[in-house]
Amino acid sequence: MIAALVFLVAFAVPIVNPGLPRGLRATLMTVQDVVWAIFLVDYVYRVLVAPKKWEFVRKHPIDLAAVALPALRPLRLVAALSFVHQVAGEKLRGHVAMYVAVATILVVTISSLAVLNAERGEPGASIETWQDALWWSFVTVTTVGYGDYAPVTAEGRLFAVGLMLCGIALLGIVTASLASWLIERIAEPDPAKQPATAADVTALTEQVRELRAEVLALRGGQGT
Amino acid sequence: MIAALVFLVAFAVPIVNPGLPRGLRATLMTVQDVVWAIFLVDYVYRVLVAPKKWEFVRKHPIDLAAVALPALRPLRLVAALSFVHQVAGEKLRGHVAMYVAVATILVVTISSLAVLNAERGEPGASIETWQDALWWSFVTVTTVGYGDYAPVTAEGRLFAVGLMLCGIALLGIVTASLASWLIERIAEPDPAKQPATAADVTALTEQVRELRAEVLALRGGQGT
Amino acid sequence: MIAALVFLVAFAVPIVNPGLPRGLRATLMTVQDVVWAIFLVDYVYRVLVAPKKWEFVRKHPIDLAAVALPALRPLRLVAALSFVHQVAGEKLRGHVAMYVAVATILVVTISSLAVLNAERGEPGASIETWQDALWWSFVTVTTVGYGDYAPVTAEGRLFAVGLMLCGIALLGIVTASLASWLIERIAEPDPAKQPATAADVTALTEQVRELRAEVLALRGGQGT
Amino acid sequence: MIAALVFLVAFAVPIVNPGLPRGLRATLMTVQDVVWAIFLVDYVYRVLVAPKKWEFVRKHPIDLAAVALPALRPLRLVAALSFVHQVAGEKLRGHVAMYVAVATILVVTISSLAVLNAERGEPGASIETWQDALWWSFVTVTTVGYGDYAPVTAEGRLFAVGLMLCGIALLGIVTASLASWLIERIAEPDPAKQPATAADVTALTEQVRELRAEVLALRGGQGT
Repeated sequence: MIAALVFLVAFAVPIVNPGLPRGLRATLMTVQDVVWAIFLVDYVYRVLVAPKKWEFVRKHPIDLAAVALPALRPLRLVAALSFVHQVAGEKLRGHVAMYVAVATILVVTISSLAVLNAERGEPGASIETWQDALWWSFVTVTTVGYGDYAPVTAEGRLFAVGLMLCGIALLGIVTASLASWLIERIAEPDPAKQPATAADVTALTEQVRELRAEVLALRGGQGT
Repeated sequence: MIAALVFLVAFAVPIVNPGLPRGLRATLMTVQDVVWAIFLVDYVYRVLVAPKKWEFVRKHPIDLAAVALPALRPLRLVAALSFVHQVAGEKLRGHVAMYVAVATILVVTISSLAVLNAERGEPGASIETWQDALWWSFVTVTTVGYGDYAPVTAEGRLFAVGLMLCGIALLGIVTASLASWLIERIAEPDPAKQPATAADVTALTEQVRELRAEVLALRGGQGT
Repeated sequence: MIAALVFLVAFAVPIVNPGLPRGLRATLMTVQDVVWAIFLVDYVYRVLVAPKKWEFVRKHPIDLAAVALPALRPLRLVAALSFVHQVAGEKLRGHVAMYVAVATILVVTISSLAVLNAERGEPGASIETWQDALWWSFVTVTTVGYGDYAPVTAEGRLFAVGLMLCGIALLGIVTASLASWLIERIAEPDPAKQPATAADVTALTEQVRELRAEVLALRGGQGT
Repeated sequence: MIAALVFLVAFAVPIVNPGLPRGLRATLMTVQDVVWAIFLVDYVYRVLVAPKKWEFVRKHPIDLAAVALPALRPLRLVAALSFVHQVAGEKLRGHVAMYVAVATILVVTISSLAVLNAERGEPGASIETWQDALWWSFVTVTTVGYGDYAPVTAEGRLFAVGLMLCGIALLGIVTASLASWLIERIAEPDPAKQPATAADVTALTEQVRELRAEVLALRGGQGT
């Protein structure tokens, strides 16, 4: 996870600040390569350790993508998905709202970096600074879509479509959480009118069983 | 279904690639006509075979539309709806998410082709290449709507309205699936607190019936 | 209802077709006034007939608005709300989806007329023909919002905000219907695992009551 | 609450009407400072009175924000959040729909003031009058997003993102309310098919208990 964070920083700095001296830029590229190598080693290790190797590969597609995709430079940031998944996944156990908030912020940030990287300097592109990219990212994920900024390159649009789908998912999660909370809150508060629980019926069954035992004792007494 | 696929390809190629030689273009038009003829024959056959002819026509409006509408050239792609319905309908039995994903991709692709076909070359039109059309399609179906591309012809706008309504349906399906999943997940995990099932009550009723038999036996014993 | 339809037509024609001869235009205005007078008489009659006059006024705010507002020319179309409510309300009893479809089409049509009426000829306005107004209406109600057309007058924006709120309601209704359908469909199909119904428990109670009668008979037999 | 209203008015007037004479403007600024001082005194008093001081501070983050943030001039309006919360919170007990309506109107109004304050006079800004700001606010909160007006300053965009998130919440609340209402309305109306209530089972258990008492009496009779 720390490796993923370092990777993210090493990726973000040269994108946000295009006027970096060449030496520093080269260093950060090296850092990226090193972190990716760490990811690769970690993944290979986990595959080798796993009892059923093929099943492990099939069941962890995000991990595989995080390792395989960065080989293509522009898709590097997808590796950060692994980071989102890890950080957010741990929060999930606690609270859905927290997970959604953290995941949204990470997806918005990473998308803005990826689109900025794809768009800057392209002819006709409007997204040229990280502030604009971040603003565009929020406008997109909420499905508002002013259109004051919009990607024009194929790569930028690919990330944009991903972000839009995340936006739809975000809308869905917010609505679904509210709906399930509302439905629960509305539920009948009068205990007598609530559905009979399995425990109620089990208690009753126990009573009937004891009754049968008593009736059997009666028959025994009659026999005497 | 293979016929529908051929039709789709024969439709898509001349739209995406407007610089086709005249001969090839004419051939593809012929292919479209042939496939449509196959659809027509297949539909007429199924109507004739059906025991109640009028009921069959009334209950399969999409099939009818797929056969009748292509007579009007610009509405040809609606025939592809039949294809979407067939392919996606089979997946549905397996999984809702899969159905939604396949249907969305098909609707987006077909809409982008239809709008590109309607818009290209029109005065004031901004959608001129299939890449732009696909991008516009995604921006519309997610209800983001940047407005960097927008149809200007009546025909293009008709398809656009259809796509927007699909977008609303998509949003609705994503949200509804999440809501039903969440409501299920939240459900009480303590088995004793779950509502009594019909099986519980049936088991109890059986016990009471046996008890009555025993009491009757008791009365019989008393009579002796 | 027929009166409302006549009113709608008398309202729509001069808006959609601004080049009407003066005489016809004046006639249509007179028709509007006459229909409004009919509404007024009908409303006053219903108030006078009602046993509790003030309660009737308080409980039918839409009827009151439909009668009072048309006095201000530009808000005339709100009277058509009464029409929407009547037509759609009758369908509701049958089917929610039908109601939503009819109401949406009517709201979209009326809004496009109202905004066209407010915008046409204003400096800086982009909505100048009924086709553009209708297109703008659909783009707004689906919350896509390209921004290729947007109202610039206070009156046009007032109707636009109303239309947007309808759009949110539309989205909500579509999603909610899908959610309730999905939750129902997902419900446990195994009858033994469904919650015990009140009927099941009533049947069991009846059995226990008969058992008690038999035990009482036993006691009677013992007494002999 | 009256203090919050005075604060809101004192804040809104100089923003909406930039051509105020200097003296009046200065007076309003003083009013703002006085109201803020009242807030501060009220908050400090409540902290001192509270039995567990730290817990009170931790549990009322909005109150703290309302007091601390206005020290930074541009974030002053966040203090009005306290007002929204108080007014709307009281309505909530009555009715969710009312709460949502009041909260939406307040959030839209306050956001339009905040963005107008941030944008007016900035180079490239399009939001220059309170009418435009209010229109932009509605276009944003409904996630329509025409893009005819959009903030260009960092501060304006910060408020815009907040408004967008409110818009998503609004959509979610409308949908969730409709869904819970629909699910309730669809619920089985046949009383015999409704789930057995805890009361039903309790009544049955009582019957079985009386039966056992009778059987015991029978055994007693036999003993004689």
